[in-house]
Amino acid sequence: MKKILIFGHKNPDTDAICSALAYAELKIALGWLVEPVRLGKVNAETQYALDYFRVTEPRMVETVSNEVEDVILVDHNERQQSAADIEKVRVLEVIDHHRIANFETSNPLFYRAEPVGCTATIVKKLYKEHGVTIRKEIAGLMASAIISDTLLLKSPTCTEEDVIAARELAEIAEIDLSDYGLQFLKAGADLAKKSIDELISLDAKEFSMGDYKVIIAQVNAVDVHDVFNRQAELEEALNKKIADDRLDLFMFVVTDILNNDSTVLALGKEVRAVEQTFHVTLIDNKAFLPGVVSRKKQVVPQLTHVFETY
Amino acid sequence: MKKILIFGHKNPDTDAICSALAYAELKIALGWLVEPVRLGKVNAETQYALDYFRVTEPRMVETVSNEVEDVILVDHNERQQSAADIEKVRVLEVIDHHRIANFETSNPLFYRAEPVGCTATIVKKLYKEHGVTIRKEIAGLMASAIISDTLLLKSPTCTEEDVIAARELAEIAEIDLSDYGLQFLKAGADLAKKSIDELISLDAKEFSMGDYKVIIAQVNAVDVHDVFNRQAELEEALNKKIADDRLDLFMFVVTDILNNDSTVLALGKEVRAVEQTFHVTLIDNKAFLPGVVSRKKQVVPQLTHVFETY
Repeated sequence: MKKILIFGHKNPDTDAICSALAYAELKIALGWLVEPVRLGKVNAETQYALDYFRVTEPRMVETVSNEVEDVILVDHNERQQSAADIEKVRVLEVIDHHRIANFETSNPLFYRAEPVGCTATIVKKLYKEHGVTIRKEIAGLMASAIISDTLLLKSPTCTEEDVIAARELAEIAEIDLSDYGLQFLKAGADLAKKSIDELISLDAKEFSMGDYKVIIAQVNAVDVHDVFNRQAELEEALNKKIADDRLDLFMFVVTDILNNDSTVLALGKEVRAVEQTFHVTLIDNKAFLPGVVSRKKQVVPQLTHVFETY
Repeated sequence: MKKILIFGHKNPDTDAICSALAYAELKIALGWLVEPVRLGKVNAETQYALDYFRVTEPRMVETVSNEVEDVILVDHNERQQSAADIEKVRVLEVIDHHRIANFETSNPLFYRAEPVGCTATIVKKLYKEHGVTIRKEIAGLMASAIISDTLLLKSPTCTEEDVIAARELAEIAEIDLSDYGLQFLKAGADLAKKSIDELISLDAKEFSMGDYKVIIAQVNAVDVHDVFNRQAELEEALNKKIADDRLDLFMFVVTDILNNDSTVLALGKEVRAVEQTFHVTLIDNKAFLPGVVSRKKQVVPQLTHVFETY
């Protein structure tokens, strides 16, 4: 039996790391030879969950075809968000909750996507369908993933299924969802100590929208001033990234996790797409986006639509 | 509540028609407002099943955006195999057992693909997951779809899950799988009476492979001479299609359902890809392909690989 690697997207968030760990454990229980790995640094929020539940982080890799022929993707499908050499391996399975784009296979595969708030919610269903019980530590990580992706069940991406899954997982993990959740989110939202480079790559995802190349980075903050009191420095780094990667737009979205709003800093030659999408005027390159907390549901589809009908 | 259309691919086969009917019935049982439709003529094999189980064929449509905003695809995902205006509607769900290609959404969706022999096998699982019982007539159609896609459970695409599903469905439908199956397959494999135009469009699917545009048509035959005694006429029609649609290759695959082999007639400027893929030499534009019965598993991936590494 040849080993299969399981991993989430580049610049991994809690769902990318924890769904890889949880799905790998399920596959192993079903007799598969798999190893969960990660495509980037573990962020502070995820580290809090790993420490709390005493689980070792998955091994970091940059390429996969040097090790295996087959892979399983969780929490992503778009090739620019995946391993650098994803075209050189066969994707056996995808478990995801995002749109499908820039994804193509030559062979039939197992693809399970559902429009829920978190990949871990789907992984939980798969445990149930296969009649495998979830260990306490893994349940804690899966609950953390749901808390992270849904901002403690408050994001508009959060569905009834996510709420039920989070509650059941919290019970198995023996945690109070709100108490644990707030500490966990805060661990990831302390931005004052982060370097500018860390800030812009922490949760940055690249998208093709029409003929445009866009990066949308999102960070959670308890105090947005921790970011914007370094705006000049931040803009310098973003403009360098835009030039290096020939981007048409970089949206840097800072989400206030206590008030559930966001402030966007937009740079690049296509910033007017941001103004058009959100019906705002950028002042000092920034705009306040009331109620916007979800990149997937409140930013990507709307911005894609604007770029495609430009 | 706005109506949603459910449909399989163009040039529909039994799975495309019957999985649309079966999944629509499940969705209606779950309270959705859906209508199964079809993107082309009902073939003789499918008609046999519809007549046998006394089910009315779904309504035929060519475009969908004039009627609805949202659709559900079964048994396909590639846009060139779908409704002509598929880009103008939102794909809410896909239930499929093919590779994923030329498929992209702006929004998260429900996507359920499994590498099994037939879409109906997945639809059967969805009935079970939702605790909905399958009516006798619908079970008959689903069993027919599995028989059709797996050539009575003998194709290499057939999995253990397809075998179990077919047996359970046959029991609900009160049919003998082998007796019914052979009559049903023969109804679709009587090619002597079919016009050349019918033959080349009956089950033709278009693919993009690397930079090449390819059509692979497949017909089931009890006697392959019913086709090849009209080879000159057939080649004329295929060459016209190649010129009209600027195809690089047309593979016309005639599958002998009694012996489980195929003979291919290949035309177009890239016929050498066929020779390279199957390690054969075309004689009189034809080659015998022993043991080849599945386009999806034994033709498309191998030919795609050859075109991509040309």
